[in-house]
Amino acid sequence: MLLQWHLGACAVLMAQRRAAGGCCCCSRAPLNEDNARFCLLAGLILLYLLCGAAIFSALEHPFELRARLLWKQQLENFTRRYRVNLGALHTLLRQYEQANGAGIRVDILRPRWDFSGAFYFVGTVVSTIGFGMTTPATIGGKIFLIFYGLIGCAATILFFNLFLERIITMLAYIMRWCHERRLRCGGAGVMSSREESSGEEDSLEGWKPSVYYVMLILGLASVVIACSASTLYSSMENWSYVDSLYFCFVAFSTIGFGDLVSSQREHYESQGAYRLGNCLIILMGVCCIYSLFNVISIIIKQTLNWILGKLVCSGQHKLCSFPCLRSKNQNQRRPAARLRLNRMKRNAVQPVSNQCPIGRQRYTDGSVETVCDSETDAGAGAEVHLGRRLSGEMISVNEFMVSNKVSLALLQKQLSETAHQGPRQSYGHQNGFSGGVGALGIMNNRLQETSVDR
Amino acid sequence: MLLQWHLGACAVLMAQRRAAGGCCCCSRAPLNEDNARFCLLAGLILLYLLCGAAIFSALEHPFELRARLLWKQQLENFTRRYRVNLGALHTLLRQYEQANGAGIRVDILRPRWDFSGAFYFVGTVVSTIGFGMTTPATIGGKIFLIFYGLIGCAATILFFNLFLERIITMLAYIMRWCHERRLRCGGAGVMSSREESSGEEDSLEGWKPSVYYVMLILGLASVVIACSASTLYSSMENWSYVDSLYFCFVAFSTIGFGDLVSSQREHYESQGAYRLGNCLIILMGVCCIYSLFNVISIIIKQTLNWILGKLVCSGQHKLCSFPCLRSKNQNQRRPAARLRLNRMKRNAVQPVSNQCPIGRQRYTDGSVETVCDSETDAGAGAEVHLGRRLSGEMISVNEFMVSNKVSLALLQKQLSETAHQGPRQSYGHQNGFSGGVGALGIMNNRLQETSVDR
Repeated sequence: MLLQWHLGACAVLMAQRRAAGGCCCCSRAPLNEDNARFCLLAGLILLYLLCGAAIFSALEHPFELRARLLWKQQLENFTRRYRVNLGALHTLLRQYEQANGAGIRVDILRPRWDFSGAFYFVGTVVSTIGFGMTTPATIGGKIFLIFYGLIGCAATILFFNLFLERIITMLAYIMRWCHERRLRCGGAGVMSSREESSGEEDSLEGWKPSVYYVMLILGLASVVIACSASTLYSSMENWSYVDSLYFCFVAFSTIGFGDLVSSQREHYESQGAYRLGNCLIILMGVCCIYSLFNVISIIIKQTLNWILGKLVCSGQHKLCSFPCLRSKNQNQRRPAARLRLNRMKRNAVQPVSNQCPIGRQRYTDGSVETVCDSETDAGAGAEVHLGRRLSGEMISVNEFMVSNKVSLALLQKQLSETAHQGPRQSYGHQNGFSGGVGALGIMNNRLQETSVDR
Repeated sequence: MLLQWHLGACAVLMAQRRAAGGCCCCSRAPLNEDNARFCLLAGLILLYLLCGAAIFSALEHPFELRARLLWKQQLENFTRRYRVNLGALHTLLRQYEQANGAGIRVDILRPRWDFSGAFYFVGTVVSTIGFGMTTPATIGGKIFLIFYGLIGCAATILFFNLFLERIITMLAYIMRWCHERRLRCGGAGVMSSREESSGEEDSLEGWKPSVYYVMLILGLASVVIACSASTLYSSMENWSYVDSLYFCFVAFSTIGFGDLVSSQREHYESQGAYRLGNCLIILMGVCCIYSLFNVISIIIKQTLNWILGKLVCSGQHKLCSFPCLRSKNQNQRRPAARLRLNRMKRNAVQPVSNQCPIGRQRYTDGSVETVCDSETDAGAGAEVHLGRRLSGEMISVNEFMVSNKVSLALLQKQLSETAHQGPRQSYGHQNGFSGGVGALGIMNNRLQETSVDR
């Protein structure tokens, strides 16, 4: 696995070298880098699973043995006391298992398939929680479930993604507002040193909230929801608080084991309100945890890029004469040099993400620095990313003008060059991808990936 | 709900009107459009859930009643025959329920918490399948699960997203290769009529596979995997074929009820191979179905946009003097008029997605048309999208130059105007978002959203 992606990373460098001369095989480079990242992640997840299995095995195996022993004793006691044939009892227990499958318990539970029960069931289907307290038993139900779930789960994935967008937008607005206030109060002196005065908004135009802050906020929101929900559940369901917290996590993360399921008894105090509240809590929790997972996955992706960059640079590969891995700040302090380098390599207008505006950097106390970082994946493996970045079909004209002060004549030349040559290499990797994949794509655009000095 | 998003849509139009004059409150428009889509989706999902609940209730309720009756009879028979105290039997059954929770059944199953069992368990955790055949019973295990799952699920979401990117890239390459071949064979005549000759690559530079084709391929792949897996499961687990298919869907979609779980018996023929195969099948299936869900969710999003566009246009809202909803082809045939209109409204360089290059359109037999479509969400509700599109911080210079032949002087003016005014409204909506959200973001960039005439 390691070898595979190491080879992939080498191919990236090779392709980039060729690109410096011929610039027609760049489309391979990002593909191989992506493959490397994918394989690295797969390997790390496998390792994580192995460690997890070992730990859980150590934690739970003794309890399993005790439980097995306990059940054996209970069964023996019962057969001895009532002189029941063990085979007959086993048959009864098997029958009970089957009845369990249809949602029947000794203690009467709420009906499984009345309308409200069925609604709870379809909720667990489309959200992919799948507690399994209710499952279709008829063939018709099972076949219908497949088609129903196909559309339902797809719609819910869309819903979660739209929610993610909404919540990140909202957080960005709020955090931008706070940032604006702080700038207005403390940053007046800094502002006067700016060459072009185009109003205060410009300093915030590309401002994005830190991914760490967003993670913190989402994490706090999740904790608050989980804790309040646990308080409710532990009083309503008579679960311990830890059990309630565990249920909340299992439900909100859509794992849904089904060992604990809320709102299953036949009667509760103020039943209608509790059932509605239960649905709303699970909905809120799932949305929140889904967003949190996606924000955490950005950080995991950064880590992967960092590892990838580290491994490409180290060792015997001295192919990269320009610095591969470098701290973010170092990267940002050399925009002119990098721009020149890029321009030599391809006659495309370079996308702005690699060229931090010097003027703005000086002017906005570190928070705007991250406009660049958010697209360079925290600066790690930045040169590996060049192949992708250089596709340069889309340019941020604003950034380009403000920061680099290129003459309009040069700009014209570059524009026409881009028009005729630039996009040829970019069909495989459209710009929308360079910021990240999946829900990451959103967040890489909305969030700064490092908090720098904030 | 309907009212809410209708109001939202109205606000979009109002904001756009204001934008035509003052162009400083546009940031509200896209927000409201997104909110409208979000609310519409939420409403439709709720409707879908209600319908699903009704259907499942009708399908399953009779079976539940029969099962309840059957169990009652079985219990009665047993107590009558063995003269067992019913209370004592209930106690035993409760004890059996608890033992079930620890993974104990009458028929001996594989150990839950040996290493391989724990590995299966953590697999169901990080993939969020959560069958629940094995659940942590100790407090330590439950607390550890919360932290373990937090990282594990986030990493797996990243893995699925990277897989989605890989599979879409692969499909795009393959389908592009087929498309290229077809062009080379049949399209030589069409090509000669082109004004600018910049090689064959240009005709494919923005080529993206149809979302419907990708859905078809992923759907077929899922069906093939599910059917072969079902054949295996039905022979190994003695399930009926429908049950096996149902299990496959429930597992692959990460619902994971746990009523049927593969690889749970103590002994199988060629056990090691079966266990490994089981893991690989579930992994492949989950990846495939995740991708399929995401592709389907694009189509759902298109439908939402279409409904939204329809509703904004119809009725008493004659605010939109320009055509709101129009078939895609109509939209594409009037690029110049739309560009002019947009330019009047805001002094920003218009992003290319709304202005299809006439030259390319004439030249590439319908497949390149979709470069435009892929960003206008199938042309539906296109004017609603204008507010977002007009933020125009990023422009595709290539498209702009090739298609519109604006003079460089005008371009310069627009560039500097964009630099100083354009982005002010756009901090909330970076361009990366306009293509879609979440995993949609990827696919909107990679896929054409309609198959037009292919």
